[in-house]
Amino acid sequence: MNDKLMLMIPGPTPVPEQVLLAMAKHPIGHRSGEFGQIMGEVTQSLKWLHQTENDVLTLTVSGTGAMEAGIINFLSPGDRVLVGSNGKFGDRWGKMSTAFGLEVELITADWGKPLDTEQFKEKLAADTEKTIKAVIVTHSETSTGVLNDVETINRYVKDHGEALMMVDAVTSLGAFNLPIDDWGLDVVASGSQKGYMIPPGLGFVSVSPKAWEAYKTAKLPKFYLDLGPYSKTAKKNSNPFTPPVNLVIGLQMALRMMQQEGLESIFDRHQRLMKATRAGVKALSLPLLGPDEYASPAVTAVAPVSVEAEKIRTVMKKHYDIALAGGQDHLKGKIFRIGHLGFVSDRDVLTVIGALEATLQELGVDSVTPGAGIAAAAKVFAQS
Amino acid sequence: MNDKLMLMIPGPTPVPEQVLLAMAKHPIGHRSGEFGQIMGEVTQSLKWLHQTENDVLTLTVSGTGAMEAGIINFLSPGDRVLVGSNGKFGDRWGKMSTAFGLEVELITADWGKPLDTEQFKEKLAADTEKTIKAVIVTHSETSTGVLNDVETINRYVKDHGEALMMVDAVTSLGAFNLPIDDWGLDVVASGSQKGYMIPPGLGFVSVSPKAWEAYKTAKLPKFYLDLGPYSKTAKKNSNPFTPPVNLVIGLQMALRMMQQEGLESIFDRHQRLMKATRAGVKALSLPLLGPDEYASPAVTAVAPVSVEAEKIRTVMKKHYDIALAGGQDHLKGKIFRIGHLGFVSDRDVLTVIGALEATLQELGVDSVTPGAGIAAAAKVFAQS
Repeated sequence: MNDKLMLMIPGPTPVPEQVLLAMAKHPIGHRSGEFGQIMGEVTQSLKWLHQTENDVLTLTVSGTGAMEAGIINFLSPGDRVLVGSNGKFGDRWGKMSTAFGLEVELITADWGKPLDTEQFKEKLAADTEKTIKAVIVTHSETSTGVLNDVETINRYVKDHGEALMMVDAVTSLGAFNLPIDDWGLDVVASGSQKGYMIPPGLGFVSVSPKAWEAYKTAKLPKFYLDLGPYSKTAKKNSNPFTPPVNLVIGLQMALRMMQQEGLESIFDRHQRLMKATRAGVKALSLPLLGPDEYASPAVTAVAPVSVEAEKIRTVMKKHYDIALAGGQDHLKGKIFRIGHLGFVSDRDVLTVIGALEATLQELGVDSVTPGAGIAAAAKVFAQS
Repeated sequence: MNDKLMLMIPGPTPVPEQVLLAMAKHPIGHRSGEFGQIMGEVTQSLKWLHQTENDVLTLTVSGTGAMEAGIINFLSPGDRVLVGSNGKFGDRWGKMSTAFGLEVELITADWGKPLDTEQFKEKLAADTEKTIKAVIVTHSETSTGVLNDVETINRYVKDHGEALMMVDAVTSLGAFNLPIDDWGLDVVASGSQKGYMIPPGLGFVSVSPKAWEAYKTAKLPKFYLDLGPYSKTAKKNSNPFTPPVNLVIGLQMALRMMQQEGLESIFDRHQRLMKATRAGVKALSLPLLGPDEYASPAVTAVAPVSVEAEKIRTVMKKHYDIALAGGQDHLKGKIFRIGHLGFVSDRDVLTVIGALEATLQELGVDSVTPGAGIAAAAKVFAQS
């Protein structure tokens, strides 16, 4: 069937009807009073969502652009940075930091495993001369469905005292509790096509006072991604450059929906979605890539053994019109990923698990107890 | 009245209903075959619109981001560049080039006057050691409604032989003939919220083989705006980072509409809109900022003397729901600007001129012959 797609990838995520319709309105001028009001409301709501009094700045970029802004505004060529890398995105921040002439030390873990917080502790404790200027960590590693322990790593960064804590929260913001002010996170970057429930095209960066101090002496060249003018104009509910007005209007609507649901409910829902998905997948005898204790609330990676991951993805798409994500880089063909981030409900998980079971049947996998997936997912919902 | 806005600013410009509705569809995965097909079609259509066989790359940025990508990918710190500056945007490219450590020589003209092509000729002819690496010129200066003579300046750049010709075509692309291959323009940047008839959020950069040669040795740091990966992935109808899928789907629709209208018809229409607007404004005894011979096809700047520009803008907005743009920087309060770019028809110009006359009456300006504005605009349409 046409137009029947169910989008269960870790971004873009599904967009509510009322957001789509808000975005379909004729654009208005970005320098108008009317748009200023929208920007004002959106900026306040973003602070609420980020649990912070810090600046939260809105840029016309993808998540990678937001991370780049978050890194280059506060550092100078030759600065030493620790970069956690246990997946495609951690990897990317390492490459990006190298491209900007930073002195990068990678702290790696296998894809599918969480970063070892002790390694951060050791490196930071050993740095008595305070040469480490920033620690860059991916919170929810989208490529593997692993959630890194930002809270613990951040404690070691705080003990260090000098380094800035920079977090890629692209698939965790609005899905998992990340209290920026409570923890004192300096830079947190995210993108619109994830927990925000709107299409891609906007990036967000929250910036602490400590990071703004570093900004004053940071020497990496910048203009479009120079956060100074974004901060200055945000105070007047404006932007240095033309923002994607239709997306911002969609964002306004989505943030209202999120406020109505409430932060705790949103986090609880994502926990439920994650647990039910994992329970359902396990009950279908499909191995999960990462451990339960470090499971991302946004995406679950499945590493099937007795049947090819791509075959499952193909039937899910062709027969059931459910789009799942494949593996990236060396995990290509070895895993598939179920997105359960943003505008996703308990019902959606039941649908995916049901279709997954049907797909296994269609592929001739006969080791599965009929109904086991749904039974396991339903049990999670019944108990939570 | 609510929801009755008529947007006559030089960006964002009006968006056709069918484009808005295309954008309001549920997002699809950016790595799906379906989206690949859309990207493939869009890339081909962009080449048609740019009149080029060069790469035309699509980025998630505003126009400023597209210009930055166009500059930093092909230059190294300390490179000497000539930057034409006769308005806010030429000014901006000078500041941007300085921010990236280029050795900037500004060739300036008063705001409202065109750049003097002879000054480019002299500078380029004097540079026998070929130290000038790029010439950066704004084609249509949005802040003043002046069209710079890119064709002539480009001839001098070609005589020089070494320098790259970089053009800000943000408000000229899709409005004025800019034959990239015929003229041999190296870098041409533009933004979606202008002639493209879609909302802001996408930037475009066309890159010549000569520019790609310069890319190989260019040393300015870059990652998100590194055009290499955009070019590589574009060949596979993909993107290095998540693109704003809904905007791209809107772009597909808008480009189809443009192909249906045809390039010559589009250029002719913008010439008509420009001439009729200028004739109507003159007939209302309102002075134009720039000369007719260098008039932008996208925007007309009006510098009223006997009545305040902002009073005109206010009545136009409050009584007639027509949004006009104000002046920028030192022209703030001194001019207003009528956008006639993109999805704008002859009828829209009649509407604006009619409302402008009514506004002058409301403001007590009694020196205007009743009906003179419409009569003059209608004459242009009748004769063309």
